[in-house]
Amino acid sequence: MKQLWLFNQINSDLQRVEKELHRFVETDFPVLEESAVHLLDAGGKRLRPAFALLAGKFYGYPLEKLLPVAMSLELIHMATLVHDDVVDDSKTRRGRPTVKAKWGNVVSVATGDYLLARSLDLIAKINHPKVSLILAEVSVEMSRGEIQQIKASFDVKQNLKQYYYRIKRKTALLIEASCKLGAIVSDAPRRQVWALGGYGHAIGMAFQIVDDVLDVTAEASQLGKPVGGDLSQGIMTMPMIIALQRSSQKERLSYLLGKEDKTELEVREAIQLIKDSGAIDESMRCVDLYIRKAKSYLQELPNVPTRKALADLAQFIRDRKF
Amino acid sequence: MKQLWLFNQINSDLQRVEKELHRFVETDFPVLEESAVHLLDAGGKRLRPAFALLAGKFYGYPLEKLLPVAMSLELIHMATLVHDDVVDDSKTRRGRPTVKAKWGNVVSVATGDYLLARSLDLIAKINHPKVSLILAEVSVEMSRGEIQQIKASFDVKQNLKQYYYRIKRKTALLIEASCKLGAIVSDAPRRQVWALGGYGHAIGMAFQIVDDVLDVTAEASQLGKPVGGDLSQGIMTMPMIIALQRSSQKERLSYLLGKEDKTELEVREAIQLIKDSGAIDESMRCVDLYIRKAKSYLQELPNVPTRKALADLAQFIRDRKF
Repeated sequence: MKQLWLFNQINSDLQRVEKELHRFVETDFPVLEESAVHLLDAGGKRLRPAFALLAGKFYGYPLEKLLPVAMSLELIHMATLVHDDVVDDSKTRRGRPTVKAKWGNVVSVATGDYLLARSLDLIAKINHPKVSLILAEVSVEMSRGEIQQIKASFDVKQNLKQYYYRIKRKTALLIEASCKLGAIVSDAPRRQVWALGGYGHAIGMAFQIVDDVLDVTAEASQLGKPVGGDLSQGIMTMPMIIALQRSSQKERLSYLLGKEDKTELEVREAIQLIKDSGAIDESMRCVDLYIRKAKSYLQELPNVPTRKALADLAQFIRDRKF
Repeated sequence: MKQLWLFNQINSDLQRVEKELHRFVETDFPVLEESAVHLLDAGGKRLRPAFALLAGKFYGYPLEKLLPVAMSLELIHMATLVHDDVVDDSKTRRGRPTVKAKWGNVVSVATGDYLLARSLDLIAKINHPKVSLILAEVSVEMSRGEIQQIKASFDVKQNLKQYYYRIKRKTALLIEASCKLGAIVSDAPRRQVWALGGYGHAIGMAFQIVDDVLDVTAEASQLGKPVGGDLSQGIMTMPMIIALQRSSQKERLSYLLGKEDKTELEVREAIQLIKDSGAIDESMRCVDLYIRKAKSYLQELPNVPTRKALADLAQFIRDRKF
């Protein structure tokens, strides 16, 4: 697990989440355990557990209530990753082959189902009506986003509204839920639950746009997956949608983005056209708006060190290179 | 939907479940709606909703509580069917092409995720801790069964214990849950919840064994799917496991069952060897034991007409030809 210095306040508890997650996916099925552990070991930033714990920090930090919530969030996230890799036919994630690439569709479907079921079991045991309801509603929306992604792939006619619809469901809603649930199980005042949710939503949107920018601008070694992955998979992201409007070579770009089997050369050409169009700067301006919005929600919260940590985290998400 | 005469008592309410299910899967995504409606229209016997409603009949029949439970059960069942068809690579189900065959893996994964998420949403709104917990636990076990099925496919060395492990998770637990939950939301006495659960479990086991027998003995036109589907997919069922012990041509049968790409001729040969071994009669004796067990649980329940209906249903499940 990549440890972010920003999580200093909750470091040891995040490690506990990590350990519990490993213990939790242990089963008597070698294949399943291998694939789940593979997924866990690939790491990721454990953003969702971190947000839940940080939100709890404002309100007495009832760790025993926060831990199962943090774990459920990460399990749901992992389950959607495995199924998304089937949907997107992804080969690598975080520098490692995906479960799909390594074990195929069948194991991926089963692994995702298992992780989701385990998370349901945890959620049921939390036995807090709001927790169940929020996570169920997020699950419905996430699966709507998944469908929309299938429907819109390789479609060069789509607009930013469709893109926002998708990334909200793919990323923002679960991060929003992470912040809200951390607050809810810690008995936060209603207005502050709302503010933390607003922060999480904005951070989630920013996070996904940065992800989509990095897919065009980063080096594969930093990214842990091939650059241009979205391009190859036909996932239309903000930089592409903006570039399709602004590029001096609109038609060529449109042809390249809509083409289902791009050569490596074509992917590189498309990346260059996107960069030349100014779409990256424009996307980052949009990220800045979300970051500003996220920070403004923080004003509603008690002025404790955690508030500063959340503001720094927002900035980190903007500036990250991986 | 095939209407069973056995469901006379709850006919109009089952129709309401049906209508609600259709309304429920309506979305603004044509593909998703098409695949979900395709699945709904393919019908099935709606056994799980029926069991939940019938269980409620013993205890004042609080329909408004029973309906969402009945719907959740069928949505979970449908979700697992779609994902199972990916896992088993099934081409037809109930006389129609599967979602997988018609739209591929990607849509199948997404459709299953969507149906499951919709069911979670319903369950969260029921807001009954026991309902959530039971369904979450069943989901975990069902996904364990799914993994076991992958692991054991084409494995001719497996025994009946592994088979029981699998069909319990594939079928019996959700039918058990259907009976129990119908009773629980109707505030049944604890002992009767237990008895209805026991009935459901035994019925579920019997149902699956009969299914597996029909896969060998039925005509494709009755079955709605190709005969020998389990054979082709490498799913080892009770008739096969018994035949592997008893057949006078063990080695030939073992070769055929373990072979991954069987010709149609080889499937027919294997079916004949299974029939000749006496495995079908032996399997049906096992069904009879479960049916007897199911009926014995009914003795714990109030002597109202529903009890007779459940006994008839047990008999029907034994004698069915489709």
